Amino acid sequence: MEWVLTGRSVVTFDEKNSVIKRGALVVEDGKIVDLGKKDIILRRYPRYERIDVPRGIILPGFVNTHTHAAMTLLRGYADDLPLHEWLEEKIFPLEARLTEGDVYVGAKLAAAESIQAGVTTLNSMYHFMNGEARAFEETGIRAVIGHVCFSWRKEEDIRETKKLFEKWHGREGRIRVSVDPHAPYTVDPEYMKELHALAEDMQEKYGERQVIVHTHLAETEREFGLVKEKYGEHPAVKESSSVVEYLEKLGVLSEKVVAAHCVWVDERDVQILAGKRVKVVHNPVSNLKLGSGISPLRKLLKAGVTVALGTDGACSNNTLDMLETAKFASLLAKGISRDPTSLPATKVGRMLTVEGAKALMWDDEIGSLEVGKDADVIVLDFSRPGGIPLYDEFSHLVYVARSTDVKYVFVKGKLLLEEGKLLTLDLDELEREVNKTVERLLSAL
Amino acid sequence: MEWVLTGRSVVTFDEKNSVIKRGALVVEDGKIVDLGKKDIILRRYPRYERIDVPRGIILPGFVNTHTHAAMTLLRGYADDLPLHEWLEEKIFPLEARLTEGDVYVGAKLAAAESIQAGVTTLNSMYHFMNGEARAFEETGIRAVIGHVCFSWRKEEDIRETKKLFEKWHGREGRIRVSVDPHAPYTVDPEYMKELHALAEDMQEKYGERQVIVHTHLAETEREFGLVKEKYGEHPAVKESSSVVEYLEKLGVLSEKVVAAHCVWVDERDVQILAGKRVKVVHNPVSNLKLGSGISPLRKLLKAGVTVALGTDGACSNNTLDMLETAKFASLLAKGISRDPTSLPATKVGRMLTVEGAKALMWDDEIGSLEVGKDADVIVLDFSRPGGIPLYDEFSHLVYVARSTDVKYVFVKGKLLLEEGKLLTLDLDELEREVNKTVERLLSAL
Repeated sequence: MEWVLTGRSVVTFDEKNSVIKRGALVVEDGKIVDLGKKDIILRRYPRYERIDVPRGIILPGFVNTHTHAAMTLLRGYADDLPLHEWLEEKIFPLEARLTEGDVYVGAKLAAAESIQAGVTTLNSMYHFMNGEARAFEETGIRAVIGHVCFSWRKEEDIRETKKLFEKWHGREGRIRVSVDPHAPYTVDPEYMKELHALAEDMQEKYGERQVIVHTHLAETEREFGLVKEKYGEHPAVKESSSVVEYLEKLGVLSEKVVAAHCVWVDERDVQILAGKRVKVVHNPVSNLKLGSGISPLRKLLKAGVTVALGTDGACSNNTLDMLETAKFASLLAKGISRDPTSLPATKVGRMLTVEGAKALMWDDEIGSLEVGKDADVIVLDFSRPGGIPLYDEFSHLVYVARSTDVKYVFVKGKLLLEEGKLLTLDLDELEREVNKTVERLLSAL
Repeated sequence: MEWVLTGRSVVTFDEKNSVIKRGALVVEDGKIVDLGKKDIILRRYPRYERIDVPRGIILPGFVNTHTHAAMTLLRGYADDLPLHEWLEEKIFPLEARLTEGDVYVGAKLAAAESIQAGVTTLNSMYHFMNGEARAFEETGIRAVIGHVCFSWRKEEDIRETKKLFEKWHGREGRIRVSVDPHAPYTVDPEYMKELHALAEDMQEKYGERQVIVHTHLAETEREFGLVKEKYGEHPAVKESSSVVEYLEKLGVLSEKVVAAHCVWVDERDVQILAGKRVKVVHNPVSNLKLGSGISPLRKLLKAGVTVALGTDGACSNNTLDMLETAKFASLLAKGISRDPTSLPATKVGRMLTVEGAKALMWDDEIGSLEVGKDADVIVLDFSRPGGIPLYDEFSHLVYVARSTDVKYVFVKGKLLLEEGKLLTLDLDELEREVNKTVERLLSAL
């Protein structure tokens, strides 16, 4: 289907951060085929289907670069508890009961929430990822999925990961598979190397589509202590003074690595991450909520690290709302540095979009509005009182926009959200499925 | 008019933080006359007008305890700039052009945004407050209004303040007037005392309705330095080592004082504020965005200070969204203390409502859902995918709720928002007025 979208402006997030006032964008066969001034575009494509949002801002879809999609099922199940009690007494017992069917339901809920909030790509690590993949295929969202790998279930992990690649990698050009070692303290050194080698193998086997390695890194202060406790005999651990240094010595840091959190990194770690071109995902809401600490964002950015944004799972957030995450990221950086010029909206907007695409090594196809890229496009409408007046698009995007301002969402040229209504799933049915699942999970406790 | 509201639960914010599951609340003649289990209430009041929100949570309206309402006109006009440049080069020149008519338009916009976001009471300090008062009277929101006072315009300030009292204090039982010294560095010591005496006079003159003193306090690190520079010869300044101590020595701290910010307060200041029963308004979004610093909230609360929440003006936020402010407050406290149990949702919910009412000395009439109080009541509906499942009302309120989940708003028993639609103003007309005003302000620059 062919579309012309017109709005107050088109914010491209191309290299120049160009904004086209009174702009329009043309979608054809899943791609962006043209963009420019509205009056010129309309003359050029008179017969295309039209979406006109006079107060609208047309943007690339947001990239949620770190989440555990199906954890929406546990949204708000346990809060305000000490980390240990939260995880061990609340989250793990419920998670242990999840089936692939539950994960499918949770991931559909995540996809629904995400699409409504302008998120067109999810990078999700969890269990029973076949369930998530089915949900993403059906709902039309773009995703990178990875089976979370732990030392205690190596064989199963590798089998599952390979199965995911076989079945899903490249599906519809919008689902990719990643290799996901959980974290340095739950994946032993040799297994860590094995998983990185697996990623290389998969890359070779599946050709041009990028294979990334999605992991948690330096989330809590005690992480390296745990690594030393468990794997202290390994030379790479022995010779290191931080978890980042340890992974470097292990030889597993590369541009393929998407490292969530990086809260506890010192100057030297930052240099290592930059040198190895590791991608960092900042999850400010989750880091604050769990009391993990605050990532040294300015240092990472200054060192040239690609930093993207993530919500983390709904369990520690408790939303998948990337606009909220963007505001937290910007304001936290300003507040901590006591410098209101830190992390300006022009930069945070890029982190929501094109930097996320770069982190996933998918920026050849998504992340910005440029001719030839896939049409992952959203339109925000600022017509509510809280959305006017509008002086500057970037400021509005980061400091004012609400997920509910998102009115239209396309992924790969397919319309998924129209006037705020989801087109690819039945919300009443979804709610019934979610309630049924939650009831079963709780009843078994 | 008489109403029965039913929902999934009624969250009262009474002293016990009671939650009535499958609850209902009865509104009559502007008051809450009954509340309890839905089935009982429905039998008791069969003929009352009904509002049924099966997934709804019924709550007291939120109290925005520090804002400058009309600054909505400058929402996003200037961001990401150094404080000095932002204020002196951007905000002040535009503000200098404002008329009472503009303030009226800006305050209507603030009221519209606030009502839509479940805020039923605003505490606003600004210029041309007759304009704000008119806007609040028309739109139906509850408000405390104060004319901002500076040393450089004493006579005008006192005249204006007295006029406001005469015209507006007590109007419709929902508009009150306060005395508003701007800040310790812009109001000289003798004038500060004079304004506090004025508040006492007004209290005496206008009887039972409480008169508060609304001011900024300890917002930035340099504040006491400025005070010393300007008023260093005054004995109260000379003998003090902080701005709080100085005001204590001046004899102007009391339970009437609503002090916005209190970012730069040390242990001793906290004890003074607690001892004098000063009310503190925490404005986390504004404090972060301007890089002012982070208020030691846990210390203030531990010392027993009444702490409420505010958005500050839309210029430094850039919204008047109290739900966003609540999430920032809770998460920032957790993140800074690195303790996920800090400032739990049960407490933050109170800060949004009853603590705000206490700060304004209005908790005899508003702030909680109790029989005999005014019916300032809101209903949130969590039907969107991002709002399910719902395990716990408090958690949902602070970590999940969006201003757009607010579907019904009553102030003093009058319905102002119905199914998300504003009943007391025409949004298209408001938008035209706002755009016209902004155009005029900008064209004159």
